[in-house]
Amino acid sequence: MELSKRQEKIIEIVKGNGPITGENIAEQLSLTRATLRPDLAILTMAGFLDARPRVGYFFTGKTGSELLTENIKKFKVHEFQHVPVVVKESVSVYDAISSMFLEDVGTLFVVDNNSCLTGVLSRKDLLRASIGQQDLNAVPVHIIMTRMPNITVCRKEDKLIDVANDLINKQIDGVPVVKDTEVGLEVVGRITKTTITKAFVELIMDEHI
Amino acid sequence: MELSKRQEKIIEIVKGNGPITGENIAEQLSLTRATLRPDLAILTMAGFLDARPRVGYFFTGKTGSELLTENIKKFKVHEFQHVPVVVKESVSVYDAISSMFLEDVGTLFVVDNNSCLTGVLSRKDLLRASIGQQDLNAVPVHIIMTRMPNITVCRKEDKLIDVANDLINKQIDGVPVVKDTEVGLEVVGRITKTTITKAFVELIMDEHI
Repeated sequence: MELSKRQEKIIEIVKGNGPITGENIAEQLSLTRATLRPDLAILTMAGFLDARPRVGYFFTGKTGSELLTENIKKFKVHEFQHVPVVVKESVSVYDAISSMFLEDVGTLFVVDNNSCLTGVLSRKDLLRASIGQQDLNAVPVHIIMTRMPNITVCRKEDKLIDVANDLINKQIDGVPVVKDTEVGLEVVGRITKTTITKAFVELIMDEHI
Repeated sequence: MELSKRQEKIIEIVKGNGPITGENIAEQLSLTRATLRPDLAILTMAGFLDARPRVGYFFTGKTGSELLTENIKKFKVHEFQHVPVVVKESVSVYDAISSMFLEDVGTLFVVDNNSCLTGVLSRKDLLRASIGQQDLNAVPVHIIMTRMPNITVCRKEDKLIDVANDLINKQIDGVPVVKDTEVGLEVVGRITKTTITKAFVELIMDEHI
């Protein structure tokens, strides 16, 4: 984020004199407390300043780049997740491969009759099955899928960086975003290496972080 | 990066008085020019200050987070590339799929007898071929591969962010890093969505950027 001249001055004042009350900062700048309120709110939200009741504002000592990485660490799954593509357990491997091409995704999620997660199919799983000797129209996906509890899942309030870490450490292409229901885990989204690559590009290309 | 107290003071002085010579900064801090030299070099390399001959140092006006994104924009392909996995044009689709599993990669590069790039095989290409009616042992990969000039390549001095952008915009999983030779393009590395996801995790987890 780009700080205004006044915001930079406020940081200087708090650095030199903190903890200091909003009133005192206003005085030093010959401004009213009301004029200053938006700036103080922005600087506090962005993490440059911290405020303690009956004490005042103090400088957190964090540089812009530390705050940037801290902010990226806070990104939540639901801010980045894509729509999931699901198939039923009884679907044939052939039809699952067709779905993968039609929807142009690298990972399919398998659900039971309650629409709850029971398995995951990666391109690798489907490729392995397709070079076997079986008739792909006769084999249902539940025979070849990776099944619960061996599936890594995430929830919408999880941190994106933790999911990215899971993708690398567990060598998987994508994880389902799930919601806990009484009958099981409902699949509500997906996070893949494409999601992370997109986030990377947007963050670096976007000048407004 | 974490700035020392002295480095922060230098920035303040240059902000207030720039352009200013190193001599004058040293004077204001009651230090010798020699003592200050490493700090000035660090601040200039990091992009906080800029120096012009016979004028002096001036403040670039960039915040830490702007400098961080600028630095990430400068990352080169060769700092992140992984080892490529290549197969010959005459190899069968079945053997290519086996290589993909053995080497645990998502993209294979196809080369001619001079070891020069002629094609790319993604998991998607191999999956498409494997559900066809052909005998996978009888079909050579050059029949099904994506071929030059329809291949996106990069070179080791290219910027990582540009390759990440290509992966997203062209909807591909990986690109070969190539070296120009007299007989064609030699494949020397690979950049994939996994590479970018790893870079993302390392950047955010690493406190030392």
